[in-house]
Parts: sequence; structure tokens; C-alpha cells
Amino acid sequence: MREGHVEEDSYPSRGTSSEWVERKEPVVWGARPGPLSEHELARFGRDGYLVMPDLLRDRAAELRAEAKRAADDPKETHIREPESDVVRSVFAIHRTRDAFRSLVRDPRLADVARQILDDDIYVHQSRVNFKPGFDGKEFFWHSDFETWHQEDGMPRMRALSFAIALTEITPQNGPLMLIPGSHRLFVACVGATPERHYERSLRRQEIGVPDRVTLTRMVESRGLHAPTGGPGTVLLFDCNTLHGSNGNITPLGRSSLFLVYNAKQNMLDEPFCGRPARPEHIAARLHTDIV
Amino acid sequence: MREGHVEEDSYPSRGTSSEWVERKEPVVWGARPGPLSEHELARFGRDGYLVMPDLLRDRAAELRAEAKRAADDPKETHIREPESDVVRSVFAIHRTRDAFRSLVRDPRLADVARQILDDDIYVHQSRVNFKPGFDGKEFFWHSDFETWHQEDGMPRMRALSFAIALTEITPQNGPLMLIPGSHRLFVACVGATPERHYERSLRRQEIGVPDRVTLTRMVESRGLHAPTGGPGTVLLFDCNTLHGSNGNITPLGRSSLFLVYNAKQNMLDEPFCGRPARPEHIAARLHTDIV
Repeated sequence: MREGHVEEDSYPSRGTSSEWVERKEPVVWGARPGPLSEHELARFGRDGYLVMPDLLRDRAAELRAEAKRAADDPKETHIREPESDVVRSVFAIHRTRDAFRSLVRDPRLADVARQILDDDIYVHQSRVNFKPGFDGKEFFWHSDFETWHQEDGMPRMRALSFAIALTEITPQNGPLMLIPGSHRLFVACVGATPERHYERSLRRQEIGVPDRVTLTRMVESRGLHAPTGGPGTVLLFDCNTLHGSNGNITPLGRSSLFLVYNAKQNMLDEPFCGRPARPEHIAARLHTDIV
Repeated sequence: MREGHVEEDSYPSRGTSSEWVERKEPVVWGARPGPLSEHELARFGRDGYLVMPDLLRDRAAELRAEAKRAADDPKETHIREPESDVVRSVFAIHRTRDAFRSLVRDPRLADVARQILDDDIYVHQSRVNFKPGFDGKEFFWHSDFETWHQEDGMPRMRALSFAIALTEITPQNGPLMLIPGSHRLFVACVGATPERHYERSLRRQEIGVPDRVTLTRMVESRGLHAPTGGPGTVLLFDCNTLHGSNGNITPLGRSSLFLVYNAKQNMLDEPFCGRPARPEHIAARLHTDIV
């Protein structure tokens, strides 16, 4: 797809056919010491995610208050709900807010990322997602890597996300659901990437989502899991783990902070979909300071 | 509201103010013997609902197959999803399909209804709701009685519903959620009833829903509950219990059969909202055969 680019695309997608290929990279990259036990690393490798209940409970109230301020601050980069003006996400909050800037270096997160990715790391993306009570809309199933590869030019599967609960997550308020083991397959998605796709996809994603037959087979064979927990509970997941979430008509809003670390050796190249790169606040190219 | 009507409306709604009034009728009407124990009756009286796991497991496969045929049959009365042509509900299936016609007389349901309502009973409404995988949309919070009183002229709170699971209900595939104890209060809803409101409300209800402040307070003080279970699990709930459900992006569709019994002494009058009565397949006036 990319003109003048010699490297072959190891994960083609956004074409006319939907097919799986096996993941080409490891999930756990090395054996450097870190906070996770052998058992936890093995579980992360097998499932593509790991729940760490209450890991950041000591910081949850402060982070929640700061997220609220970011949502109310017109200088921040807001994404709104598909059918209203309610703020759905605020991006790049680790560059604008001290509380998040310091969190990025918290060893409970950064050391885990270094341990798994076996490299120096930087923040590829940060955002707060608000799933408001009553009105919160769904996020359809997707692999983050599929988008980051196609739209941001992330070469390989060597990145991971921490989803940090800022409010209580219950089974009913639209928790993030994951398909265990889905990170070991790359599902090519059907459909060309429209121009400035992110302006729509961050509100409601329709391109870059796996087909329904594949999703049905995956859930039939692997099940799905929706971790719950109190504020400060941390969900770590691989960049290629399929996930999504239902809407939320309960009065209980659900807010989460997402921090994505990428390996230094995996910095962004040109997007594989052939479109211009997405803005810096969605995918860091310039501000790739090593954590 | 109703011209030439002398009886006072004991549950005004659809005006300009949102307020609660205490329920004026009992929940359990008498002490006639029946399938439910004293303990189960007390629980139903307290919570406004009762879960009966696997009660109709022996009939679930047959009913599911018949529901599928009804969804595919253009002669049936179909309601479609708000954003697509996918069938969301089929109404009055107990009049068109033998499997449902016989189910209405199954003593595991009918005897329970007679026990609680302490009267002869007839079927006020029956329907199958399909919450398809991937696309199933939410049902916002509502009291059935509020609608049946306003739009159908049901005089008093002396009716109940059985929701019969035709497929597995999991926490993730959009289960029905209830607010325990909410049946003891009547929440007046703001907003006049539009003409032919049911044509829209059965797809997505926006009038006849409680305000958000009230819902938030109720859930804060009473919590919410989303019963799960296998096919054939039966959820019995009072006509005034607040309930709703989230959408469903999982591949696992969720289908339920709803049977509503009304007490003979509580047959429909003119609608309290002043609009013409809704069609017979939504609210029985002519076919009120005693079960």
C-alpha cells in the first residue's frame, strides 16, 4: 500500500477479505526481572490480559478528580458521544495534567511494561474514556493493533495498554470485555480506510472491526471475560487482544484511564493504510520521550 | 384527562412534573393457595420480582424454535430495531402459535398468576423480544404499568409479567435489569403522549420514562439486579417494577418470551392519556378470554 516503502506489510488488513494469520511476535518479549511473577507473565502470555485488582487504589480519587477537570476544560482534546455533545474521551492527558504525567512513570505500570516488552518504552497514547450513566454508548469489538498498524504505522505487536478504573466497574455499567487468547491471531478487517477516519471511528468504529462470523467462532471457542472491580483496579492487555464494551443505561457512570506504552524499537513508521498519519495527540510521533 | 369519565385517575403521569406517589394497591392480592411458598410470596412482595431458575427448561427448545418461525413469518406482527430492519419483537404470539397458546395455560405460570392476583386472569399482552447478537439495542428504564395505565387504560396495579429465557442469559448479553422495591412507588413521567406513540416507543421509548434524578436516587438506595440463567429460566415481575436492559455487542443473542396476565377485575378502560387505545395485538380488549 505505502508508496516508496520497501518493508513488506506483515499484517495486511482493510482489503476485501477477512482472514486470520498467526501472530508473528512474542507476547512476553524477554525475561528481564520486574513486578510480575512467572505465573502472572505466563497468564498474560496465554490470555492476552491480566487483571490487577486495586493496584492503584491509592491514586484513584486524585486521578478521577483530575479527569473530571480535563473533561470540563475546553483547552483539552475532547471526543464526543456519537449522538450527543457529551464528552466521551479526552486524549493526551499525560502531556497536559501533572497527575497523569507522574502516573506514566509510576513503577507499578512502567516497570511492568518494560518487563513484558523488554525494551525502553514511551507513551504511544493516553486517554480518559467516560462512559456516562444512562447514555454511554458501546465500543464495538476491535484489536487496537489493527488500527495502530493501519492508521498509525506501528510496525509490530510490541505495545500494551493499562486500563485503570477511575470508578467502580460492575457487570452492568458497560465493562470492557475481552476475548481470551485472541491476541495470538491477527484478524484482517474488510473495508478501505476512509479519509480522516479517526474523526468518526473514535466516536463509533465501523471500519477496522473483525467480521461477525470470526467473532462468533472466537467467542464460542474462547469465551469472553468482563473484569469488574473497584476504583484503582488495573487491567493490562496486549495491543492485539480483541475487546469491546456494551452501552450503559444504568445511572452509574464508568470512567477509565488508558495508558499505552510502546517499545522504543517499535516506533511509528508511515501508516500502512496509505492515509496521512493521525494527529499527534492520538498517536505520538514527535513526543516519544523515553519513560 | 378523559372526557366524560367520572373515575379519578389515581396515577397521573405524562404531565409537567416528576413526582413519586406510594403504590395504592397490594402487591400480593390474597392468600389463595398456589405453587409459590410463603417465603417466595414474601420475597416477591418485597422486591417486586422473583427468579425461578430452569422452571420451563423442558419447553425451552420447542419455544425457541417456534419463536424463530414467528420472526421469519411475515404474517406475524413484527416490531423492528430502531436503526435496522432486524426483528426486535413479535406480538400476540399466544394467538397465532400453538406452542404459546398452550403455554398460557401451563399451571407453572397461570397458577402463580392466580395466586398473586387472587382473581381470574387473562392475557393482556404476549411477545417475543429478540436481542440479536452484535446489534441488540437497549431498552431504557420504565414501569410497564405507567404505559399500560396511560396508553391502554389499565386501572390498577393488578397485573404481572413472566419473562421466559429462550436462550442463555449472561451478564454480558443485555440481561433485563430490575430495581428491587421500585414497584412500591409510582413515578410520574414528564411529557405528553404523542399520537400513535407506540409506533415509536416499542422501538425506542423516550416518553413514559422516569427522570434521571429519580432513577439515580433509586439505584443508589436500592441497587439493581440483572438475573442470569439458562434457557427456561423464568423471571416473574410486578407490573410496576422499574426495569430496562443494555444493548448487546456480544455474538450471543438473547431471546425472551413475555407473557402478561391481568386480573379479570382490572380489565382495560379508556386510556388515561386521552389518546385512542393501542391496537389489540399490543393490549387485549376484545380477546380477554379467561385462562
